[in-house]
Amino acid sequence: MTAERIIRLDLEYDGTGFLGWQEQARGRTVQGELRRALHRFLQQDIQPIGSGRTDAGTHARGLVAHLRTRSQHEPAKFQRALNALLPPDVSVRRALAVGNDFHARFNARGKRYRYRLGAHRRPLTRQQVWIMPRPLDLSRLQQAATLLPGTHEFRAFCNHHPPPDHYGCTIADALWSQVDDEYQFEIAGNRFLRHMVRILVGTMTQVGEGKRSVTSFGDLLSTPAERAAAGPTAPAKGLCLLGVEYEEIDGGPSGDLRTARG
Amino acid sequence: MTAERIIRLDLEYDGTGFLGWQEQARGRTVQGELRRALHRFLQQDIQPIGSGRTDAGTHARGLVAHLRTRSQHEPAKFQRALNALLPPDVSVRRALAVGNDFHARFNARGKRYRYRLGAHRRPLTRQQVWIMPRPLDLSRLQQAATLLPGTHEFRAFCNHHPPPDHYGCTIADALWSQVDDEYQFEIAGNRFLRHMVRILVGTMTQVGEGKRSVTSFGDLLSTPAERAAAGPTAPAKGLCLLGVEYEEIDGGPSGDLRTARG
Repeated sequence: MTAERIIRLDLEYDGTGFLGWQEQARGRTVQGELRRALHRFLQQDIQPIGSGRTDAGTHARGLVAHLRTRSQHEPAKFQRALNALLPPDVSVRRALAVGNDFHARFNARGKRYRYRLGAHRRPLTRQQVWIMPRPLDLSRLQQAATLLPGTHEFRAFCNHHPPPDHYGCTIADALWSQVDDEYQFEIAGNRFLRHMVRILVGTMTQVGEGKRSVTSFGDLLSTPAERAAAGPTAPAKGLCLLGVEYEEIDGGPSGDLRTARG
Repeated sequence: MTAERIIRLDLEYDGTGFLGWQEQARGRTVQGELRRALHRFLQQDIQPIGSGRTDAGTHARGLVAHLRTRSQHEPAKFQRALNALLPPDVSVRRALAVGNDFHARFNARGKRYRYRLGAHRRPLTRQQVWIMPRPLDLSRLQQAATLLPGTHEFRAFCNHHPPPDHYGCTIADALWSQVDDEYQFEIAGNRFLRHMVRILVGTMTQVGEGKRSVTSFGDLLSTPAERAAAGPTAPAKGLCLLGVEYEEIDGGPSGDLRTARG
């Protein structure tokens, strides 16, 4: 009997048509589509494990999943076969055979997200950019972002249903920049609470509008604060999970926190 | 009675859900959607005139249209009102009051197009990038493109239904470049025949694959050749009309051939 192996898959998907990563009783999910493709490929019911959930409508360029299988196909064969079976809004960007202790969620050391924000509606990017028609001061957004690196309690910046184990997250870097006619926010950290990036963006846009001071944004990070003290949750469609980082990084086109664009 | 004015509109659209610009007896078109929005805004049936047709599935960041109206609304009001009435896959990026001799098609001095080509399927750009899985040599594509500037007979590079008045087109610049994991082709010229950019791309990819020599590609431009001598028509979805140039350019965010990206 052949030994069980672990295959790592790095996935890109357009979240528009999905209820998110996690399979649910009803509705279309990325995990569900991947499981269905695996079943057609291997004639086995294999449940892929993801690095974490994503919200309905949120996109990914590098969500990482793993699966256990006795199949002896090469990883490249997994990629080709699954890409032929998956629907057009999800694809395998990379497949790797990894060590038997690899776990997409438990071994994740960090994640990088990007949020795209525009001032005018643009048909070609309408499913990936939040349109905020009120003027924003980029330098105020940037000042707010400088307060994020380090370890803070993100109690004010998460959806409490369900409540997380704890609120402490360590942010490695956080930056607003202008790209063409958009403002983009990139943030990398060791863990992210539910809706955390979206609430950070919603609150920072209040700073950018001049409706909230940079100091009061910082206070939400340094003193215990309730969810109601922060700003609104920015729409899911502006958010994209760029990649997930692991202890043993293998190099390659995705799942890499070191490249901001790609 | 107030005088008739001409309003110029610069339009962006996602061509995925359209049969193209030009209104037809059946099916969804950009011109049809714009006419419907104008009717709701002004309670008048005004036919907007476009800078030219685009193929079903082809996108635009700067198609230019004009319309004649006695309405005294400011151009900015046209933009706001139409954007509130148009569907999400088309928008007015700019509205200008222009001189009474302005005609979006007859006064067009040149157009700029971009074609996007990728090696791997990417869910987030799947409606805007042609996936060509065979390896392409970028330097061969670039060599082929250097033959395009100047005036040539593009008889081999057009759809002859209906036949054009003549085949002479003057290309200002043409360049292949690598952008992230895509190859992109940009071309600007005084006029473009039906399917011309798509057939140029389809033929140049044969050069990039090594199936056709750079010299034989050049021969199609310098000696009379039939359509069958050129390569296939690349898919419409990879193509985007970036902008249209006019004699009196007004400066602004679009319709400008001088900015390659935007």
